[in-house]
Amino acid sequence: MTGSDAAPRIVIYGVGQYGCLIARLAAEKGWPIVAAFNRAGPKVGQDLGRVAGLGRDLGVFVQDSESGDYGALDADLGVVTHRDLLSANMDAYRRLMGAGLNIACHGVQSYLPRSNDPELAAEIEALAQVNGVTFTGCGIWDMSRIWSGILTAGPCTDISSIHISSLTDPQGQANSLAQIKQYCISDTVETFYAKGIDRNKAALSKKTIPEMVLRALGYTILESTATIEPVVYDVRVQTHFVPEGYFEPGLVMGVRFHCRTTTKEGVVGTGLVEQRMFLPGDVEHMYWEVEGRPRNRMRVERLDSAHATAGNLFNRIPDIIAARPGIVPVYEMGPLR
Amino acid sequence: MTGSDAAPRIVIYGVGQYGCLIARLAAEKGWPIVAAFNRAGPKVGQDLGRVAGLGRDLGVFVQDSESGDYGALDADLGVVTHRDLLSANMDAYRRLMGAGLNIACHGVQSYLPRSNDPELAAEIEALAQVNGVTFTGCGIWDMSRIWSGILTAGPCTDISSIHISSLTDPQGQANSLAQIKQYCISDTVETFYAKGIDRNKAALSKKTIPEMVLRALGYTILESTATIEPVVYDVRVQTHFVPEGYFEPGLVMGVRFHCRTTTKEGVVGTGLVEQRMFLPGDVEHMYWEVEGRPRNRMRVERLDSAHATAGNLFNRIPDIIAARPGIVPVYEMGPLR
Repeated sequence: MTGSDAAPRIVIYGVGQYGCLIARLAAEKGWPIVAAFNRAGPKVGQDLGRVAGLGRDLGVFVQDSESGDYGALDADLGVVTHRDLLSANMDAYRRLMGAGLNIACHGVQSYLPRSNDPELAAEIEALAQVNGVTFTGCGIWDMSRIWSGILTAGPCTDISSIHISSLTDPQGQANSLAQIKQYCISDTVETFYAKGIDRNKAALSKKTIPEMVLRALGYTILESTATIEPVVYDVRVQTHFVPEGYFEPGLVMGVRFHCRTTTKEGVVGTGLVEQRMFLPGDVEHMYWEVEGRPRNRMRVERLDSAHATAGNLFNRIPDIIAARPGIVPVYEMGPLR
Repeated sequence: MTGSDAAPRIVIYGVGQYGCLIARLAAEKGWPIVAAFNRAGPKVGQDLGRVAGLGRDLGVFVQDSESGDYGALDADLGVVTHRDLLSANMDAYRRLMGAGLNIACHGVQSYLPRSNDPELAAEIEALAQVNGVTFTGCGIWDMSRIWSGILTAGPCTDISSIHISSLTDPQGQANSLAQIKQYCISDTVETFYAKGIDRNKAALSKKTIPEMVLRALGYTILESTATIEPVVYDVRVQTHFVPEGYFEPGLVMGVRFHCRTTTKEGVVGTGLVEQRMFLPGDVEHMYWEVEGRPRNRMRVERLDSAHATAGNLFNRIPDIIAARPGIVPVYEMGPLR
């Protein structure tokens, strides 16, 4: 992105890894940060510039999200990096949209609310309409999984099926053992099922990846389904998250999703999405295959996952501010520039 | 593409390999073909459906492009697949734009006329404006070289350089020895230079690939330069274009282009584009690398080159008809759907 005429005025809701990355990017580009909110804890009351690792004050103090002042926010957009599920973010949406702010949400269900949680999607749509603001889910899927699929299908005059396979490193976008443990990495297979990871709603939302590409291409969706299974290796796996430097064989090292979307037109979209500890030689990538005339393949490699997800979200902000009111998925906006 | 409201009415100018592919696609989709023109020869006077290999009449007779009737064309767009250089296509442009038709041109210089031939670009722009029509160069570069580059750069918040490397099979889009001989494949290195392939204007137009991506990203172009060299192997190369089934070592087996575009902002775009006979294991691909934050890589594989170039052009037709008058490059139109 080479710049925009009027710098967007933003609010950060959730001052964790991604909220801090967005704050640093905004500060670098000279975008005003109007306010920042976080759950109760040591960050509240500190200057956002210090919390975000800028090494200087921004003159913005992190407020407690429960008791903060949402009445006087003179801003264009709120960046919500709070949680993955819509249900966990509803308070944030209500507070920020109620203050007249557009929303850029990093939560994985927010890419396509209608398919992940139709009831809350209806509430979000109503909130957006009544406040005249836009709600968009965005982040690393934007370029690497959604628009790459749309582009791969672009030259086709006939399509029979689309398929995405991907391999991502759970360590790439995480900075603690707790973060990679969300999918029971380093736990036993029994724990994986006991904790219901195979029914995890955030994980199941990956079923919307082929669905969003098919929607963008104009197909009428019938159904999207997904299954989740643990990935286990019979060799040790290196990690920097435990002192001994490796995980023992036989433990859960990641998750494998299979998903399938059917359409009225008969075109099928499938996905095989692996998020697992890397073995030597593995490279993080997404690979789209479109069958039809012509057949196309596209492979995306993201060398800097964490910055890529922040960059995807950050570069979408002007599009979200310019979009019509309501829930507007990134596939309706054109590709990032 | 899943269809459009009003089927575009098209004219085919140049009933060769690609003109025939476009005619077949239009017939399949039920798009009216209003007229077809070709240079004098055996195709003139035949029904386009027969010439295009449809096995049935379309009720459209191929006219001699020099003496054909351009006065009564009730059509939206002319597909020009005549030649690669703007200078060789000017008569076609004048005739079709003069009849009020938008132009989709398959010629390689037409992607970015201003950089390939500024003088003729000005004439084309004036013709388009006075007739209220759009002129667009389109084909396989659209998705695989231009929009893939734009997409790869999309998540970046800082860019230092972009680079495309590609490998294409000269046999993939050709159907005769004469076609692959345009770059002296199977000739000697002496012949390559004697024929001035290193100064070939159509080949040099590949310099515009990084330039178009940089323009799309908003950079101000300073200069684009390119060099061309022959590729020679020390092993035999298989081919189906000569009876013995192989080319001897030591002959020209393809061309290698290096190009470089500089910008006022300091961002540099480079390309290493190889079009050469394949050795075992080679796969046709384009590979974009964007350096900056984040660093991204994208690899495009086109399994059906000939249909891919026709599909790229065909799917652009509705965009061209809808675009503003003047020369409108595909990078201004959004990605193909």
